[in-house]
Amino acid sequence: MKALLFDKELKFVDNYPTPKPGPDEALIKVRLAGICNTDLEITRGYRDFKGVLGHEFVGEVKECKQEDLIGKRVVGETNCSCAQCQYCQQGLRSHCLNRSVLGIRNRDGAFGEYLTLPIENLHPIPDEISDEEAVFVEPLAASCRILEQIQIRESDEVVVLGDGKLGLLVAQVISLNGCCLKVVGRYESKLEILKKRGIETFLVAGANDIKANIVIDCTGTTSGFEMATRMIKPMGKIVLKSTVAAKYHIDLSPLVVDEITLIGSRCGPFASAIRLLRNREVEVRSLISTAYPLEEGFTAFEEASAKGALKVLLSIGAPFNSI
Amino acid sequence: MKALLFDKELKFVDNYPTPKPGPDEALIKVRLAGICNTDLEITRGYRDFKGVLGHEFVGEVKECKQEDLIGKRVVGETNCSCAQCQYCQQGLRSHCLNRSVLGIRNRDGAFGEYLTLPIENLHPIPDEISDEEAVFVEPLAASCRILEQIQIRESDEVVVLGDGKLGLLVAQVISLNGCCLKVVGRYESKLEILKKRGIETFLVAGANDIKANIVIDCTGTTSGFEMATRMIKPMGKIVLKSTVAAKYHIDLSPLVVDEITLIGSRCGPFASAIRLLRNREVEVRSLISTAYPLEEGFTAFEEASAKGALKVLLSIGAPFNSI
Repeated sequence: MKALLFDKELKFVDNYPTPKPGPDEALIKVRLAGICNTDLEITRGYRDFKGVLGHEFVGEVKECKQEDLIGKRVVGETNCSCAQCQYCQQGLRSHCLNRSVLGIRNRDGAFGEYLTLPIENLHPIPDEISDEEAVFVEPLAASCRILEQIQIRESDEVVVLGDGKLGLLVAQVISLNGCCLKVVGRYESKLEILKKRGIETFLVAGANDIKANIVIDCTGTTSGFEMATRMIKPMGKIVLKSTVAAKYHIDLSPLVVDEITLIGSRCGPFASAIRLLRNREVEVRSLISTAYPLEEGFTAFEEASAKGALKVLLSIGAPFNSI
Repeated sequence: MKALLFDKELKFVDNYPTPKPGPDEALIKVRLAGICNTDLEITRGYRDFKGVLGHEFVGEVKECKQEDLIGKRVVGETNCSCAQCQYCQQGLRSHCLNRSVLGIRNRDGAFGEYLTLPIENLHPIPDEISDEEAVFVEPLAASCRILEQIQIRESDEVVVLGDGKLGLLVAQVISLNGCCLKVVGRYESKLEILKKRGIETFLVAGANDIKANIVIDCTGTTSGFEMATRMIKPMGKIVLKSTVAAKYHIDLSPLVVDEITLIGSRCGPFASAIRLLRNREVEVRSLISTAYPLEEGFTAFEEASAKGALKVLLSIGAPFNSI
């Protein structure tokens, strides 16, 4: 099959073996996939991964022992767990000690014609949600994760830092909570997407005096984290949403003096994300930049890496008719 | 009066003006004071403080509008708050935006013959608690703070990192909770203090395989924090107890992937600390190294700065008869 591989460098191949599903797995024909910052970080050396990249996708089930799923459009949770370890036993499957992760750790990902995932990882996509919307379920679920980790009250002053793909999703999810929300970004054009939804936005240069008791760092940069530590009020919470290959050179003593809580946040509830999309509570189509065929994956990665890039998609198994 | 000042360098003076209490303040004659790592960090440039150092003390009230306090032995909370700002209004006096802090920020401290503090900051010391024990109330309260911030269950695996003064206090407080506690330190002799109380201890070299879901970093070193990030299990909590002038060079991505929570922790409840001492639930006398008169403050600081030092005291206003 065709696939976009990473093995020290990114390469397109057309003779990659089609994966074979295990007894509790499904074979899925990928329709559309999204390039995430984690994919870009992997190509810069993060996580030491080799294989087919990609973990944001929508596809069609082709083989599966659960017959009612065959032919269905699905998205899939990326963490494949062992069901045995202490984390699986506690229901924390995304922290399974023996997990493989689609396109990130020990498992080929979604930038190929086919992928396999455990049946339990799959979520059928209702007809009201298009392919281009469904491909956002994974990052939207990651945005919803924040609300599983911290309580956001109406009286909270919340800042979302970053107007990248994840920042724009997180901002929309948090705005549904009715708190006082400010979003700080670098690109007027991207902040405009949020302004249209009534969300207050600021360019970095105009954000120096903003203080908040919850700051959600979606910048994926060390300077973004530093800004978060300057903005946060005593007893406040900083949520870290982005993984960066670079090391941070930081003074932790203000975190102690001001008793700040720092919360790492990763994968989230797919069901919530699907519900938000179906109910039109979050708008994702304006976050799409371009779609490329898999053969042009290298160009797609270049575009996704450019400063200010929005979501770049890879159209794989389905005719791409709506962008 | 005699005082130990810091103004770019540490110096003993015998002609420092005796402080005058404000209308809601008490004048306190210091009996005994303790040298804390924060004092040492200040002499290395942390916080940019100038004035009389010291914030761990026990003294006798000499002047005060609340007459029943006069002649009483007291300890004092170090944060002097404005009662006006949003934090004071929320009852978070130790985070007052306009606060002065005894011997740390805009207020002369305890390494002098007299100090002043707001009356509301004072806690009388019962007769059952000696001066040498009372001087530990402030750091013991800081240890108790952890239990106000996180819940520690019997089923939790907790590691206290560091066998310095604060680590030895924190370990004793946490051990009262009945959880599975391990303490990791550098000095067999100091760990022995905890072993005698039935607490399991490890030298750093033998601690490589320890994993825990709660790690309390009392090392005051960047390498200690790195060890904490290696030990912590997914979804675990790292409590940061120490302030260090140095910057940390760290990779925050494991905190995101494993969804770790980092919690800064500072000052705590004096009433709890006094109760623990009076009930003999915590033992502090074995943590004392030496006591020096104020005139020998420089030697005292040298001893307190030495590797593996225990608590060095400054005997100021009272005959020193029990060490």
